[in-house]
Amino acid sequence: MVAHLGSELVRHALITGAAGMLGRKLAARLTDIDEVLLHDIVEPSAAPHAAYQSSSAASDLSSPGEAQKLLARRPELIFHLAAIVSGEAEADFDKGYRVNLDGTRRLFEAIRAIGDGYQPRVVFASSIAVFGAPFPDAIGDEFLCAPLTSYGTQKAIDELLLADYSRRGFFDGVGIRLPTICVRPGKPNRAASGFFSGIIREPLAGEEALLPVAKSVRHWFASPRAGVGFLLHAARLDTAPLGARRNLTMPGISATVGEQIEALRRVAGDAAARLIREQPDPVIQKIVEGWPRNFDARRAAALGFRADASFDDIIRAHIEDELRPQPS
Amino acid sequence: MVAHLGSELVRHALITGAAGMLGRKLAARLTDIDEVLLHDIVEPSAAPHAAYQSSSAASDLSSPGEAQKLLARRPELIFHLAAIVSGEAEADFDKGYRVNLDGTRRLFEAIRAIGDGYQPRVVFASSIAVFGAPFPDAIGDEFLCAPLTSYGTQKAIDELLLADYSRRGFFDGVGIRLPTICVRPGKPNRAASGFFSGIIREPLAGEEALLPVAKSVRHWFASPRAGVGFLLHAARLDTAPLGARRNLTMPGISATVGEQIEALRRVAGDAAARLIREQPDPVIQKIVEGWPRNFDARRAAALGFRADASFDDIIRAHIEDELRPQPS
Repeated sequence: MVAHLGSELVRHALITGAAGMLGRKLAARLTDIDEVLLHDIVEPSAAPHAAYQSSSAASDLSSPGEAQKLLARRPELIFHLAAIVSGEAEADFDKGYRVNLDGTRRLFEAIRAIGDGYQPRVVFASSIAVFGAPFPDAIGDEFLCAPLTSYGTQKAIDELLLADYSRRGFFDGVGIRLPTICVRPGKPNRAASGFFSGIIREPLAGEEALLPVAKSVRHWFASPRAGVGFLLHAARLDTAPLGARRNLTMPGISATVGEQIEALRRVAGDAAARLIREQPDPVIQKIVEGWPRNFDARRAAALGFRADASFDDIIRAHIEDELRPQPS
Repeated sequence: MVAHLGSELVRHALITGAAGMLGRKLAARLTDIDEVLLHDIVEPSAAPHAAYQSSSAASDLSSPGEAQKLLARRPELIFHLAAIVSGEAEADFDKGYRVNLDGTRRLFEAIRAIGDGYQPRVVFASSIAVFGAPFPDAIGDEFLCAPLTSYGTQKAIDELLLADYSRRGFFDGVGIRLPTICVRPGKPNRAASGFFSGIIREPLAGEEALLPVAKSVRHWFASPRAGVGFLLHAARLDTAPLGARRNLTMPGISATVGEQIEALRRVAGDAAARLIREQPDPVIQKIVEGWPRNFDARRAAALGFRADASFDDIIRAHIEDELRPQPS
């Protein structure tokens, strides 16, 4: 098996969590692939105008035997995005471990069980939730994973499994720690980080948005466009330079909520910014206190992963990708 | 539940892995406890002259339902030492994950399932194998866990589970990352680190010992006596200062193989040191290259964990504890 897929044509790819926001956007941007299987707990729609043959499947990846079925075509490239979000994993301990840990482990085990030289590239969507306070000013590539949520714990465990399975040669894994994706389009989900998107998305749509934390709260962001770019870059990355450290903090934009609001004002005007209403929420404040604020993501930058240029650009990407008529 | 057991009398304690070397030594030193259940895959012997009522059980902790049985008396104090060693976990991937990950998780889940205010102190024997090269000169308390063995991966995952279960209030956990225990008494086990003890133990018994690595190899050591001391200290530790970071690198002695041999010469003479025969082993060399050499274990030191004073003292502890007639 080659150490990287490079620009070779991939015959089969699999996306888990393909009905999710990033999964749908990823499916829409995939090229140089013959066939893609889109999987989720509910049946994902095919991407419009996909440049490949698309099929869909719905099942619970954490149920015994389900992962095997997804590997019937032996995809050379697997994007593993399936997960329940932080708020839900915190509210439902059993479901979080079942989906986010056992589901991932079953997928990894199903890959290993094939053997016979099968060694796909596995791109795993991890999260900066693997880190927990207290933090240095900027979190470097050698900082410990000490998560403060069950979601972060599950992702950190998945990362360890990914590294060990890669080291043992069962697959060729890359874990990418996504910044908080902002601006998330559509409806709020159950992630505690939802307000970071809400305070941009709702005002741009002319609606009021609630701000549950102080304007001084600093966080780490990437647009959906940059997030999909990370996944695509990881798919073709030469993994030899990674050595045994297969999990990479992605570059991002560090901004305070106040800076987010100023960017909104610059891009969309005062009227938009005035739609943000402060409504402190102690539960969300406490969760967010444990989250990272800033990183020094040198390894990923050296490997060619590229962040957005500014928070203004993150807002502009949202307007371009979500609020303008799509080409038909 | 109190944040620490302090000097209170513990009514019930449980030791898993009680037939192992550290488990036996721990059982022999326990005090201020009414009853202790000793558990292992083979039935452990009661400690001679134990100051408590002792019972024993043998079962496979990784089999469903077994962990529950061990909690029938609701032990307030659990020492979880059961594991298979690094060499075996590397040779048998399935067994390593089953015993070292699933066994631990089943124990943690069985504790959680009791609920009803039950929140025992859990002292977990982790390992410096959670770390992997490349390293700084001395590994600090915020250095990442990037293990280079499946054993180290399993221990790192257990640590994450321990921290999350503690954060959620299911138990009150302390993970202690044991240095390589040296001098291990008795027969060599399947740990790749076995030679570190062999080159001291065998010459002290008048036998030849094989040295598979260069004398410049540096490593991190604690005597069995210090190792048991760590476990006992963790059992009574006030865990409030730990916050969410429940896993602690233990203090130790950093020494090269050459320094080990010089210490042996000082304590036992030239004749003993001459019994060490160099026989390079590329497999062991490669494993050991990925191991840590030195630590800056400030948190544990500040919390009162105490290392041996020198490698000479480690050898003397072996002579006193293993090679002299025991009081009857």
